Amino acid sequence: MAENTGMAMRAMANTGLKNLRLVSPLHGWPNAKAALASAEKNDLVNVQVFENLTDAVADLQLTCATTARPRNMIHEVLTPEAAAEKIMSLGSSAGIVFGNEKNGLTNEEISNCNFIVEIPSVNFSSYNLAQAVLIICYAVMMSKNGNSRSRQFKTGKTSIATQKQLEYFLNHLETKLADRNYFPPDKKRRLMMQTLRNMFKRTSMTTQEVQSMLGVIEGLSKLT
Amino acid sequence: MAENTGMAMRAMANTGLKNLRLVSPLHGWPNAKAALASAEKNDLVNVQVFENLTDAVADLQLTCATTARPRNMIHEVLTPEAAAEKIMSLGSSAGIVFGNEKNGLTNEEISNCNFIVEIPSVNFSSYNLAQAVLIICYAVMMSKNGNSRSRQFKTGKTSIATQKQLEYFLNHLETKLADRNYFPPDKKRRLMMQTLRNMFKRTSMTTQEVQSMLGVIEGLSKLT
Repeated sequence: MAENTGMAMRAMANTGLKNLRLVSPLHGWPNAKAALASAEKNDLVNVQVFENLTDAVADLQLTCATTARPRNMIHEVLTPEAAAEKIMSLGSSAGIVFGNEKNGLTNEEISNCNFIVEIPSVNFSSYNLAQAVLIICYAVMMSKNGNSRSRQFKTGKTSIATQKQLEYFLNHLETKLADRNYFPPDKKRRLMMQTLRNMFKRTSMTTQEVQSMLGVIEGLSKLT
Repeated sequence: MAENTGMAMRAMANTGLKNLRLVSPLHGWPNAKAALASAEKNDLVNVQVFENLTDAVADLQLTCATTARPRNMIHEVLTPEAAAEKIMSLGSSAGIVFGNEKNGLTNEEISNCNFIVEIPSVNFSSYNLAQAVLIICYAVMMSKNGNSRSRQFKTGKTSIATQKQLEYFLNHLETKLADRNYFPPDKKRRLMMQTLRNMFKRTSMTTQEVQSMLGVIEGLSKLT
């Protein structure tokens, strides 16, 4: 909904977040209703439109999926405050990924993110999209302002890999495994890759580690 | 606006606040638009209507005024988090007072409250009423919960692997790589394994993931 986009922009402007990336918005862009809901703070937020989520996060080092429903998957789940702290401690370019109002994110979209943020709720969760965006933006601002840098991720000379680098590695792994007939003929391939993706995505892999893993794949699949 | 009331109720329901007191609402009460915006969580929030603010807060032990604009008065001003902590620490019946969307609270209304809560903002503040209510309700809930459990690692049916399982996997990986002459003849082997160990150790691998990785090693090193 356009109003959600507008309210999200308003939340971002208030909390100092600058880049909004829309993935194929149903309401098109630019949009008059969104401008109204944002209280005309549009100039404080850069909006870019992407065709798909993969492109939208390609240059980011860290992505975080927001979800209300506990899923049956292995993943690190943080509160907004802990997520904000993690983003700040990594000092990296991070994206917070929201699904649409009706369905949220798919399992596949979630497993492509590095970790999950879940907004605490009493009994059940029914925050709407704009509320969820506000709570998380607010947590990011508070973490930025605060002196609670209790957590740091030291990477020495290397740095956290971009999503594009990670995707290259994961796709390469999948291709190599497929070449070797690793996957059973049924539909388990996607599920098996999801398990591996979950694990590598939550690790905050560095560029150096991505290189190492590419070397490992090469090493293991080399014919002796 | 009725929608603000509805969104406030939704925020309250999500965060476990139970009593909403409306002071001579322009839109009347009950109101259909508010019910819609609250996502029909009405039954979780008690609504009472009062003629004036004095009556509305008469039975409370502590009241806290919300304001976006710094006023020229002497008053204690707290962040939402500090305000929530204060309310919780006093264990008293407290009310958080919001003005209307357009004008906020008057100076007189503010000075009748025990302290002020101001929501931090970057540059200028333009949270709308529903956003302000949400941020403060959320802070109260988080303070009530304590900030324990800020982080969870959900593993579904599997659980975090033991160090023994991890060691088995890492040693197996090293052996397989050595078999394939992956390591150069010099002393780099230890360093290369250290990089990989670092990465896998910080991941909190689950038993299921260890199994998957053993499968991956098998799959990659299989002769076709």
